[in-house]
Amino acid sequence: MNRIRVGIIGAGRIGRVHAQSIAFGIPEAEIVAISDPFIENAERAARDFAIPAIYPDYHAILNDPTIQAVLICSPTNTHADIAMEAARAGKHIFCEKPVDQTVSKILETKKLVEENAVKMQIGFNRRFDHNFRKIKKLRDDGTLGEIQIIRITSRDPEPPSPEYAKTSGGMFLDMTIHDFDMACYQANSEVDEVYAMGAVTVDPEIGKAGDIDTAIVTLKFKNGAMAVIDNCRKAVYGYDQRVEVFGTNGAAASENDRETMVKISSKDAVCEDKPLFFFLERYMQSFRDEIKSFINAILNDRPVEVNIDDGLRPILIAIAANKSMKENRPVKISEVMEG
Amino acid sequence: MNRIRVGIIGAGRIGRVHAQSIAFGIPEAEIVAISDPFIENAERAARDFAIPAIYPDYHAILNDPTIQAVLICSPTNTHADIAMEAARAGKHIFCEKPVDQTVSKILETKKLVEENAVKMQIGFNRRFDHNFRKIKKLRDDGTLGEIQIIRITSRDPEPPSPEYAKTSGGMFLDMTIHDFDMACYQANSEVDEVYAMGAVTVDPEIGKAGDIDTAIVTLKFKNGAMAVIDNCRKAVYGYDQRVEVFGTNGAAASENDRETMVKISSKDAVCEDKPLFFFLERYMQSFRDEIKSFINAILNDRPVEVNIDDGLRPILIAIAANKSMKENRPVKISEVMEG
Amino acid sequence: MNRIRVGIIGAGRIGRVHAQSIAFGIPEAEIVAISDPFIENAERAARDFAIPAIYPDYHAILNDPTIQAVLICSPTNTHADIAMEAARAGKHIFCEKPVDQTVSKILETKKLVEENAVKMQIGFNRRFDHNFRKIKKLRDDGTLGEIQIIRITSRDPEPPSPEYAKTSGGMFLDMTIHDFDMACYQANSEVDEVYAMGAVTVDPEIGKAGDIDTAIVTLKFKNGAMAVIDNCRKAVYGYDQRVEVFGTNGAAASENDRETMVKISSKDAVCEDKPLFFFLERYMQSFRDEIKSFINAILNDRPVEVNIDDGLRPILIAIAANKSMKENRPVKISEVMEG
Amino acid sequence: MNRIRVGIIGAGRIGRVHAQSIAFGIPEAEIVAISDPFIENAERAARDFAIPAIYPDYHAILNDPTIQAVLICSPTNTHADIAMEAARAGKHIFCEKPVDQTVSKILETKKLVEENAVKMQIGFNRRFDHNFRKIKKLRDDGTLGEIQIIRITSRDPEPPSPEYAKTSGGMFLDMTIHDFDMACYQANSEVDEVYAMGAVTVDPEIGKAGDIDTAIVTLKFKNGAMAVIDNCRKAVYGYDQRVEVFGTNGAAASENDRETMVKISSKDAVCEDKPLFFFLERYMQSFRDEIKSFINAILNDRPVEVNIDDGLRPILIAIAANKSMKENRPVKISEVMEG
Repeated sequence: MNRIRVGIIGAGRIGRVHAQSIAFGIPEAEIVAISDPFIENAERAARDFAIPAIYPDYHAILNDPTIQAVLICSPTNTHADIAMEAARAGKHIFCEKPVDQTVSKILETKKLVEENAVKMQIGFNRRFDHNFRKIKKLRDDGTLGEIQIIRITSRDPEPPSPEYAKTSGGMFLDMTIHDFDMACYQANSEVDEVYAMGAVTVDPEIGKAGDIDTAIVTLKFKNGAMAVIDNCRKAVYGYDQRVEVFGTNGAAASENDRETMVKISSKDAVCEDKPLFFFLERYMQSFRDEIKSFINAILNDRPVEVNIDDGLRPILIAIAANKSMKENRPVKISEVMEG
Repeated sequence: MNRIRVGIIGAGRIGRVHAQSIAFGIPEAEIVAISDPFIENAERAARDFAIPAIYPDYHAILNDPTIQAVLICSPTNTHADIAMEAARAGKHIFCEKPVDQTVSKILETKKLVEENAVKMQIGFNRRFDHNFRKIKKLRDDGTLGEIQIIRITSRDPEPPSPEYAKTSGGMFLDMTIHDFDMACYQANSEVDEVYAMGAVTVDPEIGKAGDIDTAIVTLKFKNGAMAVIDNCRKAVYGYDQRVEVFGTNGAAASENDRETMVKISSKDAVCEDKPLFFFLERYMQSFRDEIKSFINAILNDRPVEVNIDDGLRPILIAIAANKSMKENRPVKISEVMEG
Repeated sequence: MNRIRVGIIGAGRIGRVHAQSIAFGIPEAEIVAISDPFIENAERAARDFAIPAIYPDYHAILNDPTIQAVLICSPTNTHADIAMEAARAGKHIFCEKPVDQTVSKILETKKLVEENAVKMQIGFNRRFDHNFRKIKKLRDDGTLGEIQIIRITSRDPEPPSPEYAKTSGGMFLDMTIHDFDMACYQANSEVDEVYAMGAVTVDPEIGKAGDIDTAIVTLKFKNGAMAVIDNCRKAVYGYDQRVEVFGTNGAAASENDRETMVKISSKDAVCEDKPLFFFLERYMQSFRDEIKSFINAILNDRPVEVNIDDGLRPILIAIAANKSMKENRPVKISEVMEG
Repeated sequence: MNRIRVGIIGAGRIGRVHAQSIAFGIPEAEIVAISDPFIENAERAARDFAIPAIYPDYHAILNDPTIQAVLICSPTNTHADIAMEAARAGKHIFCEKPVDQTVSKILETKKLVEENAVKMQIGFNRRFDHNFRKIKKLRDDGTLGEIQIIRITSRDPEPPSPEYAKTSGGMFLDMTIHDFDMACYQANSEVDEVYAMGAVTVDPEIGKAGDIDTAIVTLKFKNGAMAVIDNCRKAVYGYDQRVEVFGTNGAAASENDRETMVKISSKDAVCEDKPLFFFLERYMQSFRDEIKSFINAILNDRPVEVNIDDGLRPILIAIAANKSMKENRPVKISEVMEG
């Protein structure tokens, strides 16, 4: 088999997740190099996943003509720039979300990706989650009929630090962005209008940092479907990740995954495990499957399953949501589109 | 035991429900008369529930000095007028929802109820539902902590006729009003602002009649809680009635009641019963318990559990929701309060 | 409507349950008399359920020519004798289980019932339970295919007093008898052989009284199906009543009923209500429906749904189970059949 | 890290499962050779899991002094002989179940394992299953109190061929053996007596081959606990693997794992996925974890979690079950123990 030769840019948490997926689960690819300015990170990943080359500077990866694809796992504010360089270097690109927090830079990246005829997949891993994918399938094969209402509950187990909140671009761009993508994925349509309301109910320091930690966002889609997302930065019972799609022929709803299927009956109650607590546990299978899909798109020269337009859409919605919350009114996506 | 002597005004479906509850389930009360302009209805109820007196005109009930309490089960547009007459006649009043579709008439009724020192309970039966009451208890005893988000799904099994839609005051006043009450019940706070979006996805004739059949409504409460309600006039799988309350210490969510607890495993799937299909099946216990509560309030001279202010609140929210949908903007309750 | 005129013999707990069912739920019948040697019991029932006549001696009921049917709710050791007298008096009979603990007396009763052409229904109420009846239906309509294995779990919330254990005839005759009936009901076949194992794990005093409090019993049916019953006199989490029927086309299994459908997610677990604790809560609907069925059998002159052969069968199985446990070997039903 | 050097004997289905676990999930070990008389099997495994050496004859593995541990994945009738050779060669042994179908050979193997001071772990992988392990933990930490009843349901999705049935030693030795081990694992005690009943309800050819395909087996443990196992070679809805442990403080029961947590509500029913269909899907995590445990036992010189006595116990129970079924009587384990 001709394995796809991959370089990983960034050896932090998510870089390691993808390295592990390829090393232990995707024989169709091999990691030939990993880079990180903190060279110890790259060293550790090289050791754990048997990666032959490490570099402090990612340009070494872009300059290696034997490398066919790169995974961009560097800090968010570098994604677009590195992606553009990678496109120019003729590498296929898997880029962690978000591509960028500005529309212009995403469009610029898109242009370069198209000009250089490389593939670019965005890391919206939840599209590959077994539960949500099953719902999508039921939607696509007509089981659910015409889609009327999409309900997404997405609550984190622990809030970020207020410092992080300050630099993350705000909850909508940092956290809800996944839910915006999920709503689009399930609706199969473009969002027309957004209304967002937010509050600080978890940590006042997050409020002082100018962000919110709790929100409800409603979306109107062009095909007539409506969606509602509820978010919170902290749910004491763990990572609450549920999607429900309601249509004219029926509804599909996913419950949370949990560690075991054991029920304990005691004198007090009948109890089961809490939802899986951490996003890496909850979404591990989806992280592996998105990389598999990316590798297969290259191998078979097919379109990627999550392209740069899919990367742009949730950014626009997040920007509209921020505007909606600030001005306390519904905001059309067309209002925040540039150019 | 001194039984409370009750007269029932209106022998239609809901009048019969209450008659049955008292006849077969509330020994503390006895029905001494029932009235209905369609006298056959009254006759049939008298036969089925052993009611000694029937009248075409409800004034006969109001004029009977031995009757202590009346249940107003007549058409919606007569509720307030009859309630005011009953208050003047010194009768305790159980009044089906809504008291009226206008704020002014509800306030007028309230004034008369207070002046005549009678009790008046409003028929928001869902507050007595075993599931929702348990959630409320968990909220009230602190198990859930501070309330952050309330999620209500309320979907009917079958749409009304377009004719009904035309005269019902619209979906928000006719159907969502129960959910507005439920949100207030669970939040223990006043709604500050409403945003509503609606669509016609079930029956175009409902749209032609000027109404909607699908909606998402969000509410901001004065205590900082947020709520979202999703409604549809038709769910093919039956009557979908779920409430979830999410707070700083945990969440409580109710699944739908179903006829049996049987799971069938076949070569295709593992299936259980659909939700109970009809509101009378689903809420029968709550209908009985609300009347019990009313009778007990009289017997023990305690405040009723659902008073006329509870009857006014959802009307205001419904009016605001209609305004919000029409003007496509969030509307404050203060904007729709009169006088 | 011509109401069936009913007399109730015995105003203890189960007598009151049936009185309540008829008074508040079965308009096709009316209770015209109730008897109890403890006349206060009869008085109290008469008051609560508006019964016009009370007697200390049940013969007064048997002698009333206007009474068409009697419910025998007296102590177990009087069931057969009263039933035979009632048959001779030409009354239709609803008799609480067990008819008797000896085969001969049941056969004698059967003979008299047939000679006098009255109906006799046995109080195996669980056959009318919504869950178990649904399973039976799936079995009967072929959904499950040929029945292979029946699993019954039946655990009480609290053990009886050792004194009661001493006089009850033992756990198999007192408690498991319901499960023996359920197994026969679901299997639609005759038991061929029984193997029983018992232990004392709940209360050593029950052991000293010569009884057991925990057991597993296996049954072989003549149609090839097998069944297993597990019993315990005490489950700390409440009344555990589950049936599973496994066949060549699928399986149907019932979970326990519970008070609400609410799930609570906290930092420790996701919990739901325990099973309903008490047999009156758990089986109330079945108690009403069995009496309805009896009244309807009389009204329409149809066979009763649980006849005296159904009453005999579990007694034979219980006797065989006792013999099996004592001799530690499988015992054929034919071994314990008399004459 | 000093990796444990492993040789795999047998490159069939289960050999590949273990190879995959080590190659992709257990960095603490490396596979240095694999053998199979069908050399193509070994070649394929070598390719898929990057194993450097392949042999047709397992002796080459036993003769390699750098190999520390072997996994015996050859046909059942060779297990004991190879294990004895491996013990003499000083290799640690992971041996697929059953070690042998005769007690004498297992005892002989045990002797050699002890004399040569090697570790030997038996492949009862279900002890490592997330669900059953959680139940065991609840049992061991006292949450469940004293164990009273163990219920095991174990039903295969598809029957074996009648040919296989003929050579497999019969259902109890081939299939129920896992359940016997599970019962012992959960009971923490020795079985005293067995009663078994079997039937042919799936495939008459299996009956002609002298085997059964459906069974109920009850066990009495020395500590007073009782267990019941129900088995079938075919469940149309998939692989049904459930355990329930009932004790004086509560009960723990595991539901089947399924592919997704999605519920579909349609006009017919509310359905969820069937149980995972195939044992490799259902138990994949347990296969990996048992090998991890074996490798860790070597690395840390600790006792293995499933030793050769654990391998012997279910064989004795299976032999007793066969005798019980043949003679239709309870059989003591002491009756089938060899001198």
